[in-house]
Amino acid sequence: MTDYRIALIPGDGIGREVTPAACAVLDAVGARHGIAFTYDEFDWSCARYRALGAMMPDDGLSRIRRHDAIFLGAVGDPSVPDHVSLWGLLIPIRRGFRQYVNLRPVKVFEGVESPVRRAVAGEVDLVVVRENVEGEYSEIGGRLGRGFPEEMAVQEAVFTRAGVTRVADYAFSLAASRRNRLTSATKSNGIVHTLPFWDELVAEVGTSYPDVTWDAEHIDALCAKVVLDPARFDVIVASNLFGDILSDLTAAVAGSIGIAPAANINPEREFPSMFEPVHGSAPDIAGRGIANPLGAVWTAAMLLDHLGHPEAAKEIEQAMAAVLAKTPIRTPDLGGSATTEAFTKTILEFLGM
Amino acid sequence: MTDYRIALIPGDGIGREVTPAACAVLDAVGARHGIAFTYDEFDWSCARYRALGAMMPDDGLSRIRRHDAIFLGAVGDPSVPDHVSLWGLLIPIRRGFRQYVNLRPVKVFEGVESPVRRAVAGEVDLVVVRENVEGEYSEIGGRLGRGFPEEMAVQEAVFTRAGVTRVADYAFSLAASRRNRLTSATKSNGIVHTLPFWDELVAEVGTSYPDVTWDAEHIDALCAKVVLDPARFDVIVASNLFGDILSDLTAAVAGSIGIAPAANINPEREFPSMFEPVHGSAPDIAGRGIANPLGAVWTAAMLLDHLGHPEAAKEIEQAMAAVLAKTPIRTPDLGGSATTEAFTKTILEFLGM
Ligand SMILES: CC(C)[C@H](C(=O)O)[C@@H](O)C(=O)O
Ligand SMILES: CC(C)[C@H](C(=O)O)[C@@H](O)C(=O)O
Repeated sequence: MTDYRIALIPGDGIGREVTPAACAVLDAVGARHGIAFTYDEFDWSCARYRALGAMMPDDGLSRIRRHDAIFLGAVGDPSVPDHVSLWGLLIPIRRGFRQYVNLRPVKVFEGVESPVRRAVAGEVDLVVVRENVEGEYSEIGGRLGRGFPEEMAVQEAVFTRAGVTRVADYAFSLAASRRNRLTSATKSNGIVHTLPFWDELVAEVGTSYPDVTWDAEHIDALCAKVVLDPARFDVIVASNLFGDILSDLTAAVAGSIGIAPAANINPEREFPSMFEPVHGSAPDIAGRGIANPLGAVWTAAMLLDHLGHPEAAKEIEQAMAAVLAKTPIRTPDLGGSATTEAFTKTILEFLGM
Repeated sequence: MTDYRIALIPGDGIGREVTPAACAVLDAVGARHGIAFTYDEFDWSCARYRALGAMMPDDGLSRIRRHDAIFLGAVGDPSVPDHVSLWGLLIPIRRGFRQYVNLRPVKVFEGVESPVRRAVAGEVDLVVVRENVEGEYSEIGGRLGRGFPEEMAVQEAVFTRAGVTRVADYAFSLAASRRNRLTSATKSNGIVHTLPFWDELVAEVGTSYPDVTWDAEHIDALCAKVVLDPARFDVIVASNLFGDILSDLTAAVAGSIGIAPAANINPEREFPSMFEPVHGSAPDIAGRGIANPLGAVWTAAMLLDHLGHPEAAKEIEQAMAAVLAKTPIRTPDLGGSATTEAFTKTILEFLGM
């Protein structure tokens, strides 16, 4: 029996509703593969912020440093400014644990209608590799002349050789294990200091991967191409901001942000990696038990894969695909009327539980 | 007879092929409305850069300062790095002439198939109002430690109260003349210095437009919504980078970047405004005479509108719409095999020439 300790942070809104689905699926598949999970739950959230004035305790990171992985449901609530909740929890974990790769796979599943005509099931299968700890999301900057006519705000994007090289290397090596096709998102024609540097480093790393065909596309044209012809993409590597945009856009193109998973990875395994669905806390539907659990379920599969159990991960993905292809059961975001619980139950049935 | 002097910069690639279409349409419609155009042509381009080492002469801006408007075909060629060609011509004009509004209307026309299922002719009719002279496109920044492991690049985004307020004001007033709906693109949850400032100023300006309903959407979610439900948008106001991304994305959603027009406007009319189609120089199809002239033609309509001739502008738009709805004539980007010239001729026929 392999035992894993998971730091569980359900967080806010529908994060609390989909986290149980992830645990149920992990336990079910784990049982069959001789894997047991122990969950330590942490109440870090906007509710905690309102009660105690902080999203997590000061020593939060050290409390979860020894866990094998972190599962986070979602962060954010209208009662707390977003930059407070996110920079008080999500972003410190990404940065403090050097989770410099944010991995976001996107697929069109049979049984899910895409809003894009050319996004056909079986043809669209891509991964966005997003730089996750530096770039445009920067603490450096501030304001001058508050309230006066001459007021201004500045914000410094910081790209380092180490930071760009390592994420590019991860992306090329992922492409080499897939269809050998990489697209690098840039905007070096408009953003003339940081992005030409990004381009140079991607090209440098590319020389070590002669089998991978790659090109650079400006983010404006790339967003257009993702809609016009999503099937042409395999791995897309992008800066923190561009990766954020591309992963939401490609998830929408594939038919539902409610399905999209994400992994914040520390490839060197110096620290635990963090797994969180893309969808966020969705205050508009929170509390009604109708959130789509598939984002959390697919994210659980990524967690298993990261811990070294690709077969177990694949079983989860196959169960998801089967539920979508073979049953009409759907949560409202996919056009159905099932509850989170009922949808989860069906997935567990398809997992043979 | 009203006489206008237009500074004509065909530029590079298909810019040279579509500019004649714009002039032909301007002359044709102008004749009927008692408007005459004189074109002063400037060879500013990558070809000039290769021959003389500069995209335009040092005193370029003063040579076109007294013109009534500038028409630019496209800039860019593979033989010259993009940041050189663009910062040597397009961007200095935008900035030197304080063209702080980049206006990009997007419509789905009958007869054009959109890649997005819910983008239906007659329902999608939006305008992106892009901040055009400051923000993320900044000259401030640089590199440290070139070639060494500790190398880094920084780039400073600069948002000023004056700059954000005036573009927000333009966008609210445009929304007030349309459907009273405004969306502000932000990312204040991740980009925590400049974009919360943007949000505050948009809210401040909004208090002067009580009839306009507006909201702020994070750029990642907004890109997704543009694909999921493009008809819900009326005016979108965005920073330089976000506006660049949104205008290409919405143009793609509407069915062709080849149709999309743009106006770089100095609302105070201290300086000439510049009109340029969105499509760029398209080196892959340049020289073959198959570029879609509609982007340039619609851009010509925006020029007429800006000079105070909305009825003449409307005639051009109606002719475009009629050609698309009533004839099968199309350039290859729209699925046909017509040449630029043949397509232009048909538009002129529909204009009653
Ligand atoms: C070519 C590039 C610098 C330019 C921009 O980003 O402004 C173009 O994409 C545009 O949208 O006009
Ligand atoms: C909430 C926000 C700060 C976050 C991000 O932009 O990183 C989210 O959009 C994501 O993609 O994980």
